[in-house]
Amino acid sequence: MRTLITGAAGFAGRHLVAALRGQGHDIVAADLAADERPSAPSVEADDGVERVVLDVTDEQACWDVVHDARPELVLHLAGMAHVGQAEAAAERCLAVNAGGTRNMLAACLDGHANTRFLLVSSAEVYGRVQAAQLPVSEQHPLRPGTAYAVSKACAEMHVHHAAARGLHAVVARAFNHIGPGQDPAFVAAAFARQLAQIEAGLAEPVVRVGNLDAVRDFSDVRDTVVGYLACLDAGQPGDVFNITSGATVRIADLLDTLVKLSSADVRVEQDPERMRAVDVPIFHGDGAKLAQASGFAPRFDLERTLGAVLEDWRGRVAAQAPR
Amino acid sequence: MRTLITGAAGFAGRHLVAALRGQGHDIVAADLAADERPSAPSVEADDGVERVVLDVTDEQACWDVVHDARPELVLHLAGMAHVGQAEAAAERCLAVNAGGTRNMLAACLDGHANTRFLLVSSAEVYGRVQAAQLPVSEQHPLRPGTAYAVSKACAEMHVHHAAARGLHAVVARAFNHIGPGQDPAFVAAAFARQLAQIEAGLAEPVVRVGNLDAVRDFSDVRDTVVGYLACLDAGQPGDVFNITSGATVRIADLLDTLVKLSSADVRVEQDPERMRAVDVPIFHGDGAKLAQASGFAPRFDLERTLGAVLEDWRGRVAAQAPR
Repeated sequence: MRTLITGAAGFAGRHLVAALRGQGHDIVAADLAADERPSAPSVEADDGVERVVLDVTDEQACWDVVHDARPELVLHLAGMAHVGQAEAAAERCLAVNAGGTRNMLAACLDGHANTRFLLVSSAEVYGRVQAAQLPVSEQHPLRPGTAYAVSKACAEMHVHHAAARGLHAVVARAFNHIGPGQDPAFVAAAFARQLAQIEAGLAEPVVRVGNLDAVRDFSDVRDTVVGYLACLDAGQPGDVFNITSGATVRIADLLDTLVKLSSADVRVEQDPERMRAVDVPIFHGDGAKLAQASGFAPRFDLERTLGAVLEDWRGRVAAQAPR
Repeated sequence: MRTLITGAAGFAGRHLVAALRGQGHDIVAADLAADERPSAPSVEADDGVERVVLDVTDEQACWDVVHDARPELVLHLAGMAHVGQAEAAAERCLAVNAGGTRNMLAACLDGHANTRFLLVSSAEVYGRVQAAQLPVSEQHPLRPGTAYAVSKACAEMHVHHAAARGLHAVVARAFNHIGPGQDPAFVAAAFARQLAQIEAGLAEPVVRVGNLDAVRDFSDVRDTVVGYLACLDAGQPGDVFNITSGATVRIADLLDTLVKLSSADVRVEQDPERMRAVDVPIFHGDGAKLAQASGFAPRFDLERTLGAVLEDWRGRVAAQAPR
């Protein structure tokens, strides 16, 4: 299967490339030039995957990449991924996440209408959902409350337009996902990095945290990317699927688990700078639609995932430590 | 009440200005410069309404107009309004309809957070709805199938973001509306213009039509604009309301009624150029939410409306006829 991935150097992108290699896909991995990426590693593994440079805000470049790659599958992951960073760069976020999706869809519609296209959207598009309506299903109205959520909701609208014009395009709404390789702007990575630094004697034994009361639906990223492929396999044009863990956890409990997995003896301190302006107390999704359509079920439990996150940060901290 | 209207020179905009004048509002009526408007009259009535020039794609101009007008209410009607024309100018449509909404919301959020804001959206955002799910309610997922629908759906997403940031912003999803003054690119006006031309002896007695089998939910524009004000009165921030007629009519029956109202003896011919590429057979909306929240109910029945449309075209044809 000839498969094009955008955002291939990002957090989920790298795990998706690994999963697709395991399934024998013929992969074209597109991302920004290494020095333009916000946080991803600048060195690619020498894994035989074809790498191409692509800024998805460049309409012609999208066309060129699609027409060179001639993909059967397009998994469109490229985009600004951090809610807080997007809020401070709302116009850019809209251009990248919504405009970039529009460009990729237009490229596929122009001569590659047999391509199957997946937009990786986000559960953020639902906005603040009343507790009585949780777990939230795909039928729930979109009420995006952040610039990031708006950009993803608009990207979804472009997918529906492309589906109406005949493209086999579907949407995956990913809930929170964590795992090895994530940027420390995200919560589990932020905690694990601090613990790894403390274990290595590089920081005082204090973990700085934001809102510990929030309850979220955390998947292992390695499950999430399998979910993306399940959406492509099972979806009809215009279909939308939640990708959830099927479980919830308080951030405080996630932190406790990480602390127990760590050899460090630590104190926890609240840090106002880590609090989000718009934060909902409880949020989780109903994953029944994808489970029923494809048999998708997560394989990783949270403790195993957090163990992998901590081990990843131990390696990263060791690699960066002064010798 | 200090009230700013964008798109004030357009079809619904002119009727809205008239309704607001009747209620004693202090009106600032914004629109493109007369020579840049696609179809609206280039001469304004000398009615004491303050007129300002505004291209809503100009972010600074939006800010200037809002900060000069200091409105308590903003009714944002400016936008490309014709589905077929929008499809041929998709990027421009997105910039005007979605980007323009974003600009107006940003201007209001910056220092005018007590302003109440209405986005006039469209029932087109629902896309193709299964007959079993009609009449479509506001809870129905958005599946925009045209560039116009995408632009309005994206505009709605910006409203939700603004509402989350504290602006009292609501959305009206107007179903089809007709009445005096509409552009002949829309169906009732297209029929009435032909009948008026035939009555005046200016055309052969043939009415050229598109799809007569489609069933739609036609409001009188004079009801629709009252519905807009009801949405502003009754809505909580982020609320979305359908504005419907509560009735359906086959296009063929609408044509029959117009023909009966006319003194002309005509033949009907199908014209492939008048067929829409994406057309749904039956489409109508559930208006219960607005009725319950505000008591809104339409006042005009279809025959009365069509009589007014035909009379309007008789006047327009007479004014344009060679003497």
